[in-house]
Amino acid sequence: MTYNFSDKVLALKPNAIREILKSASDPGVISLSAGNPAPDAFPVDAIREISENLLKENPIGVLQYGISDGYTPLRETLKKYLSKELDVIKENDELIIVSGAQQVMDIAAKTFLNERDTLICEAPSFVGALNTFRSYNVNLVSVTVEKDGMNMEELEEKLKANPNTKLIYTIPNFQNPSGVTMSLLKRKKLYELAKKYNVLIIEDNPYGDLRYSGEDVACIKSFDTDGIVIYSGSFSKVVAPGIRAGYMVADKAAMAKMIVCKQGQDVHTAMWSQMVCNEFMTKYDFKGHLQMLRDLYTKKANLCMDLLDEYVVPTGITYNKIEGGLFIWCTLPENVDMLAFCKALTERKVCVVPGNAFLTDSSLPCDSFRINFSTPSDEDLTNGIKIIGEVAKEFIK
Amino acid sequence: MTYNFSDKVLALKPNAIREILKSASDPGVISLSAGNPAPDAFPVDAIREISENLLKENPIGVLQYGISDGYTPLRETLKKYLSKELDVIKENDELIIVSGAQQVMDIAAKTFLNERDTLICEAPSFVGALNTFRSYNVNLVSVTVEKDGMNMEELEEKLKANPNTKLIYTIPNFQNPSGVTMSLLKRKKLYELAKKYNVLIIEDNPYGDLRYSGEDVACIKSFDTDGIVIYSGSFSKVVAPGIRAGYMVADKAAMAKMIVCKQGQDVHTAMWSQMVCNEFMTKYDFKGHLQMLRDLYTKKANLCMDLLDEYVVPTGITYNKIEGGLFIWCTLPENVDMLAFCKALTERKVCVVPGNAFLTDSSLPCDSFRINFSTPSDEDLTNGIKIIGEVAKEFIK
Repeated sequence: MTYNFSDKVLALKPNAIREILKSASDPGVISLSAGNPAPDAFPVDAIREISENLLKENPIGVLQYGISDGYTPLRETLKKYLSKELDVIKENDELIIVSGAQQVMDIAAKTFLNERDTLICEAPSFVGALNTFRSYNVNLVSVTVEKDGMNMEELEEKLKANPNTKLIYTIPNFQNPSGVTMSLLKRKKLYELAKKYNVLIIEDNPYGDLRYSGEDVACIKSFDTDGIVIYSGSFSKVVAPGIRAGYMVADKAAMAKMIVCKQGQDVHTAMWSQMVCNEFMTKYDFKGHLQMLRDLYTKKANLCMDLLDEYVVPTGITYNKIEGGLFIWCTLPENVDMLAFCKALTERKVCVVPGNAFLTDSSLPCDSFRINFSTPSDEDLTNGIKIIGEVAKEFIK
Repeated sequence: MTYNFSDKVLALKPNAIREILKSASDPGVISLSAGNPAPDAFPVDAIREISENLLKENPIGVLQYGISDGYTPLRETLKKYLSKELDVIKENDELIIVSGAQQVMDIAAKTFLNERDTLICEAPSFVGALNTFRSYNVNLVSVTVEKDGMNMEELEEKLKANPNTKLIYTIPNFQNPSGVTMSLLKRKKLYELAKKYNVLIIEDNPYGDLRYSGEDVACIKSFDTDGIVIYSGSFSKVVAPGIRAGYMVADKAAMAKMIVCKQGQDVHTAMWSQMVCNEFMTKYDFKGHLQMLRDLYTKKANLCMDLLDEYVVPTGITYNKIEGGLFIWCTLPENVDMLAFCKALTERKVCVVPGNAFLTDSSLPCDSFRINFSTPSDEDLTNGIKIIGEVAKEFIK
């Protein structure tokens, strides 16, 4: 049978990283390619206790249909928490629960983009989100990420050149994959440009709580007096990704349409996941848990950067120092074949993600690769980075 | 802020039934409008025990990212079960786990329909699925459901009249809302017509295990030698809807594209839900549980039909006798205003769903309404149907 696929999905391919992860799961392979939380990061005891209580005291609540907007107590908890901590709930805003932040990208793209409309993203950007946008046959245009975020001149040029731009997608904190945090100045400029060109912003903030050094920068949503920012939050990095729970904040009028799309996809998010998050946030030391995560990952991030400084930087590879998040972006000297380099690493049983996977057009040249330090053990991280150094010595003459 | 929505979602409205359910949840209201399983239907003790064990023995498996295709052991369990029980896994087929059967409709529509392409459904049909299709700006064309399923002459006429038809959506067993089961003869004819007109079939089978009388009829997928049937199964009615777990079976080549769409929506289905289902199917008496459900609902269905025969049929209202499922479709005599009748019921604090909600164009005239017998207590069911009889006496002169 030859299938006639819709135009939307015709060119769609599996997420390159998730394919790489399949080979990275072979025994003996040191995977620096994932984006998974460390196994130590999960509040296992708390979740076990919460789940037991929920299934004892309110099993029907866990098992029966819920409403599409999400579990009301969790929505209230998040509204309070986000108002206080991040000032991201504006007067006309609504908050709903989604089945992981990925669903925010899907729903926003579906709601605001016709096929071939333009979405502006960062170069590089999170491949999972890019693939979601691609599944709506959207024209992806990217803007270079500098050390303090998107190049704003380039952004304005691309907004001018693409009058059918509907959305700008950004990860302002500890961006995946570059590790870059956008400066306050650029956040304000981005907001101003979006307003000027009548474009909405998706602010994707899965790593915001994972800052290891430096000062917090205000969310773009916090100065959204015009209802043009769709804010996306996730429980994947701060509770657990396997529960598939996240949330979105947007102006009520925009949200009314997006809820219908959410309803069409999965009716509502799994009740167990939502109720576990609410209990954990309200009856446990959620802030203490976040501090534990920061302590855990600060150690791992510092170990990773120290190892890079010792074994990799002397070979000529550079990397962006990070203040948070889970990823470090390494760049090879010019004229080194990055894909051949990553392949040589694989032959030495070390997996990293080739940087071109994070570009809107993965056939474009790219000198960088991404490493993750949250998933591997300290031992694997040490051995992996030593091998990167050894292979780099052979490649870079 | 005035938003520019995409063409897809421009006319999209909230699911009428889920709006009705909001008012039906007021205290004192007898709701015959839901589609929820009975609270007694949930295997609460088993799920409590399974969950405790999972979070003790494999907490990281429950909490870490999974793969988009679904939890491998559950996929294997389902493949074996479905091969044996329903013969719906064909040689070139693949099975993946989804976040409730609703996601099958979303992914199939996205993968195979461009905007304004035609999807043929039944009249009446499940409003949740219709709303999902609407969210892709699809041209919905419906075919009358008779006592043994779709009118096949009308189906062929509509296939001829709409050469851009890509999908036929059917619920062959105990259809929601009509309660009708499609005959084997019509299932074969439907398959033949789909093949002749190069159209795919979505076979939505959430109620297949809930047969209370009569003989099982072979699934359409069981004679799918051409890879043209997408089969959708659900745990919502046989385990619990709040866990949002279902599955789809389709030819590998079609599935490869649909998995990418699934990945773009929510990466994967919540691990707890998937693992609970697998443990329940493999380590507990799943078939005994299904028999318990059938016993429970047989009683409720018979009570409902007996009450209708006693209090409602004498007023001139007719209904379709059912052999399974959760719904009964009642039809008023001609020249009675169905919407006014439902409104009068609401004033007497009884909620049913006006039949026009299940039509592709809800502004078309409709003499029917849907009642559900699985959710209300026997007492509420009895009082509710008595009130329907009383109101009918006033309306039908």
